[in-house]
Amino acid sequence: MSEPSSGPAAEVLISEVGPRDGLQSVARTMPTADKCAWIDALHVAGLREIEVGSFVSPKLLPQLADTAEVVRHARTLPGLTVMALVPNRKGAEAALEAGVHKLTLPLSASIAHSLANVRRTHEQMLDEIRAIAALRRERAPQVKFEVGMSTAFGCTLQGAVAEDDVIRLAVAAIGAGADELGLSDTTGMANPAQVRRLFRRLRATLGHHAGAAHLHNTRGLGLANCLAAFDVGVSTFDASQGGLGGCPYAPGASGNVVTEDLVFMFEAMGVRTGVNLERLIAARAALAQGLPGEPLYGMVPEAGLPKGFESSGAMRHD
Amino acid sequence: MSEPSSGPAAEVLISEVGPRDGLQSVARTMPTADKCAWIDALHVAGLREIEVGSFVSPKLLPQLADTAEVVRHARTLPGLTVMALVPNRKGAEAALEAGVHKLTLPLSASIAHSLANVRRTHEQMLDEIRAIAALRRERAPQVKFEVGMSTAFGCTLQGAVAEDDVIRLAVAAIGAGADELGLSDTTGMANPAQVRRLFRRLRATLGHHAGAAHLHNTRGLGLANCLAAFDVGVSTFDASQGGLGGCPYAPGASGNVVTEDLVFMFEAMGVRTGVNLERLIAARAALAQGLPGEPLYGMVPEAGLPKGFESSGAMRHD
Repeated sequence: MSEPSSGPAAEVLISEVGPRDGLQSVARTMPTADKCAWIDALHVAGLREIEVGSFVSPKLLPQLADTAEVVRHARTLPGLTVMALVPNRKGAEAALEAGVHKLTLPLSASIAHSLANVRRTHEQMLDEIRAIAALRRERAPQVKFEVGMSTAFGCTLQGAVAEDDVIRLAVAAIGAGADELGLSDTTGMANPAQVRRLFRRLRATLGHHAGAAHLHNTRGLGLANCLAAFDVGVSTFDASQGGLGGCPYAPGASGNVVTEDLVFMFEAMGVRTGVNLERLIAARAALAQGLPGEPLYGMVPEAGLPKGFESSGAMRHD
Repeated sequence: MSEPSSGPAAEVLISEVGPRDGLQSVARTMPTADKCAWIDALHVAGLREIEVGSFVSPKLLPQLADTAEVVRHARTLPGLTVMALVPNRKGAEAALEAGVHKLTLPLSASIAHSLANVRRTHEQMLDEIRAIAALRRERAPQVKFEVGMSTAFGCTLQGAVAEDDVIRLAVAAIGAGADELGLSDTTGMANPAQVRRLFRRLRATLGHHAGAAHLHNTRGLGLANCLAAFDVGVSTFDASQGGLGGCPYAPGASGNVVTEDLVFMFEAMGVRTGVNLERLIAARAALAQGLPGEPLYGMVPEAGLPKGFESSGAMRHD
């Protein structure tokens, strides 16, 4: 396989996961119209990939029961890659039916987490990947299929996760038919040295099949870990507006990296995100509209942009 | 001048600035006995450099009026470098009298900030440095003399600060007799690309006279900026327990990097700090004792240490 560049990228893709990862962690259900208005606001801010929902059983996640409807709306937004999570082949079928541009399937590096979370072994999950890849080939070959490896940097159940196991499972997932494999710090255990080591190895092994960094801010290292991944050539980063998806400052938080802060870091460094920060901060109002009273996080929205700051997104979109 | 290593260090020095930078930002005065107990707890946790106060006029900072007494206590702690801020020659005289091991003088890169903050031009400040260097040579040649360049990464008054000006002023400060020159992101405007660029240049220019990184978390980039400085060879980092020194999550905050989170990042990376994280977290109680009700920050103290985490400080001190 071809080895991608190991140096930092000149531009990055910020993949907004709030409408899925964020909303599934909130007890209340955001009304469908509000979800669509929020996604519109994110799109207006310049985001070009949004995970809009999840095709899981509505019994498990009633908050995301309207995902098909949200997908149909999001598809009308020009230039947007509409992504949805699918837990298995059945979910993938529904997602393709609704018209997503990209599927993402979670695969736990930790066996303990895989059994606890989806009650499946790695072999069973690889079978699922093969089934989804076959379905996609047959019904919608243009749709992208990503696997996100959760607990890749450690697991609260199992403790440390061996890097060799992560790489072996990553190779198997690509072999089973996924297009891209990303790594997730599900439990906020990653550190920058580990992030560099593991993504460097993933990219050397998988070439252009190496995917996104999904990093958490549970222990405050979210942006440092994103910087570490960026340094070794990662160019797609998951993030959640307002850190939605559990309070990033509380124990047990999912603690997604805050989109606003991540965009600020890259733009301040001169790395283009295509996102207009003023509009991104404005999109918080649309989120708050749909979930009144829900705490939103982010240091940049609180501190404001520094004097003289110019968002590259602003220059390109205004 | 000799050029220091440009690669990352195997161990770093965490310089705790809370008792000076933190306490001067709090309206209330911590009783002297509580300050000493807090410093004791920080020392027990393994911190080996603490900025314990400031020799400024007690009219300006009544919170730090007892600095001489605190210095005398801190000097009894084995292996501790007792540091104090001095604004001028007069302060340096009092600091040497009290018996500090290290003096630190703030010097604004921004002329606007220098005039607003200490009502002095750069030339006047360089005269002050020359006077302090002469005094030190005469009275206490073993005492170290550091200059911390504030607003080195930008200024809320003046906006951008030219990197050439920072380097020129740094060279002048060392020429005037300071031992070390560090760079401070006083206003939380730094980004990792800039931190790498400026510290790389500082170290190439000043050699072993290049000093500490004093970075803020105003916009959430504190740890990412520390990582960036570490990457280019910086090995001394200022931080404040509990982020004391203004709420790091609020506008206008001083937003010091939280010592607990910074120590966690380095220890997780396998970079030795000599600090025992459990004991460092325990030291928060001593701080809270002296300032009841004062909000303390830090993601690691809230989330807890991850399963299987081993602090190198713990291994070396237990």
